[in-house]
Amino acid sequence: MQTNTLELAKELISRRSLTPDDAGCQEILIDHLEKLGFKIEKMRFGNVDNFWARRGTTAPIICFAGHTDVVPTGPIEKWDSEPFTPTIRDGMLYGRGAADMKTSLAAFITAIEGFLADNPNHNGSIALLITSDEEGVAVDGTVKVVETLKARNELIDCCIVGEPTCVTKLGDMLKNGRRGSLSGNLTVKGIQGHIAYPHLAINPIHIAAPAIAELAATRWDEGNEYFPPTSWQISNIQGGTGATNVIPGEMNMLFNFRFSTASTVEGLKEQVHSILDKHGLEYDLKWEQSGKPFLTPKGSLVTAVSQAIKTVTGIETELSTTGGTSDGRFIADICPQVVELGPLNETIHKLNECVAVADIEPLREIYRQTLVNLLAQPG
Amino acid sequence: MQTNTLELAKELISRRSLTPDDAGCQEILIDHLEKLGFKIEKMRFGNVDNFWARRGTTAPIICFAGHTDVVPTGPIEKWDSEPFTPTIRDGMLYGRGAADMKTSLAAFITAIEGFLADNPNHNGSIALLITSDEEGVAVDGTVKVVETLKARNELIDCCIVGEPTCVTKLGDMLKNGRRGSLSGNLTVKGIQGHIAYPHLAINPIHIAAPAIAELAATRWDEGNEYFPPTSWQISNIQGGTGATNVIPGEMNMLFNFRFSTASTVEGLKEQVHSILDKHGLEYDLKWEQSGKPFLTPKGSLVTAVSQAIKTVTGIETELSTTGGTSDGRFIADICPQVVELGPLNETIHKLNECVAVADIEPLREIYRQTLVNLLAQPG
Ligand SMILES: [Zn+2]
Ligand SMILES: [Zn+2]
Repeated sequence: MQTNTLELAKELISRRSLTPDDAGCQEILIDHLEKLGFKIEKMRFGNVDNFWARRGTTAPIICFAGHTDVVPTGPIEKWDSEPFTPTIRDGMLYGRGAADMKTSLAAFITAIEGFLADNPNHNGSIALLITSDEEGVAVDGTVKVVETLKARNELIDCCIVGEPTCVTKLGDMLKNGRRGSLSGNLTVKGIQGHIAYPHLAINPIHIAAPAIAELAATRWDEGNEYFPPTSWQISNIQGGTGATNVIPGEMNMLFNFRFSTASTVEGLKEQVHSILDKHGLEYDLKWEQSGKPFLTPKGSLVTAVSQAIKTVTGIETELSTTGGTSDGRFIADICPQVVELGPLNETIHKLNECVAVADIEPLREIYRQTLVNLLAQPG
Repeated sequence: MQTNTLELAKELISRRSLTPDDAGCQEILIDHLEKLGFKIEKMRFGNVDNFWARRGTTAPIICFAGHTDVVPTGPIEKWDSEPFTPTIRDGMLYGRGAADMKTSLAAFITAIEGFLADNPNHNGSIALLITSDEEGVAVDGTVKVVETLKARNELIDCCIVGEPTCVTKLGDMLKNGRRGSLSGNLTVKGIQGHIAYPHLAINPIHIAAPAIAELAATRWDEGNEYFPPTSWQISNIQGGTGATNVIPGEMNMLFNFRFSTASTVEGLKEQVHSILDKHGLEYDLKWEQSGKPFLTPKGSLVTAVSQAIKTVTGIETELSTTGGTSDGRFIADICPQVVELGPLNETIHKLNECVAVADIEPLREIYRQTLVNLLAQPG
């Protein structure tokens, strides 16, 4: 009996899986996968549930990746229906996780089910890499599963992450990479003093301003075929104690790069230091790299997914590397081809998160067709 | 019987007159002044004690001005002796208010006493303008007394404020003016957004940085004979919510001018607006003027006090307009010549505030000699 994607999505949404709590979602998925002949390997790290499932023993391994955890609901009274009670209104399925990404998880299962019905003896292997810590600190989730697989040399050939990627129509955007993220915590040092005696003080805000202006105006790279130019943004700035007659002794600033593969972490760090040094600043700068960039150039996976999208929706999908970081950055470490495809991302992390009911079966069909393109025996 | 300046100073220091509480200090002064033939006018505004005392009915009016309130002690366990128990150690008189400015108040009284003993029929009038709200918000203090005097056209000819002005030796610095203070509260507006989508946001810190750099580099004026150039300083800057993935929607900054009589309030405001506008910023800017500058050019008062200092200490005093604001700015409104002279200011507002015992009688003598120079009948 064929599983209904909408019903499975609703079942997952009804689980209150606030990150990093899985709340039983993975057991539901595992039940289905075991019936489909998958070998399941639960990998709990810390308080995070993850699992690796695989059907088949040969290459290539085609993996679906995703997360069962969801972000908090925000003020529940501002939702039009209870966020953990999946509700259909005007053709939309509402609920926390509807778009990010429980519908994708359901579609993975039913796509595989449909594919296996026609292709019980497919080429290679089908796998799933599922975590419940994507929306949180992401320390005991995908990254740990990837380490485990890497340690035993179980590498993935192609991976489709179910993140919501589409903008206005299902299939209009396929992410074939993500920019890297590099953060800095900068403290510019001055000398504190009374505002009436500025010659005895050094105002860190004054001496930092020209350097900040130069950093903000810097063109870090031109991007490349797949990436927009690297961007640099200050998220926070703070100086002064609130007292209005004191020149503060230091100023603190948090900034972040979203960088393309046209730049390197070391190159960006050097450029920042060189600008700060040129302006003669005394400073502390702590770096934190929160994500490496990854890129999947056009090749077999991009082709298989693009063709599947075209077949199902008629749309020529757009390749993009915009947006935040995702678990794709971890998987790329053991997988040369990683793409992300899921439903529209307009409502994710917001009140009244939803997905169009009419998009659910086409999404399943795109995933199924991708498997056909990659693993079906020639008929 | 001659009052002892040191004993009177100790009596005042032993009163716990934390701003704006007078704690009975003014009654002590009034007792002495009544015995010396002063007409006393108590002027209580709000919860602030003030008084105006005058001896004589003719011009010129030579006024001593000061305050009985003191700033908080700070951590009392860090004082070497109890701050409200006047204590002499190694030739120094310790206690909160010893330098700022209870010793000056005591010296006012004994200087007048000494002067009157020799000059019972002096020219003009001697006056005192005393408040208990100089160290606090200064709303119901000197400014209100001045308004009252101004309303009845009782103008002062010369005023000596007893603020501690000296740097390393008694008499080394006479303040003949103070810079003005003009504050601004600036909010630069941007558009909030996710740090991964900077093209949808406007980062207010980035767009403000070149304007801040220009403001910090601006030479507002060259000062003049009496004033150093106007200075502009940022005391506080704040932008961002703490979240590291959000471009903030606005940035706030508090700044302050200390300005000379070479600039005007309107001129400085215009220059700031013109720089902000030139950089195309959208902003709110609230101005607050906390003090007008005042200046007493060389003339009869500066001469009388300088000569008194020279006579008593042998020092050629230095005229200066540096430092913070004082009640002199209010008095200047009804008095063409205002100067400030008191003991060394090194320990004011600090732990173990003190004054050298050896400076107390010379300070009284300088005040007395000033009265001689200005009001004594030719002998
Ligand atoms: Zn997600
Ligand atoms: Zn004072």
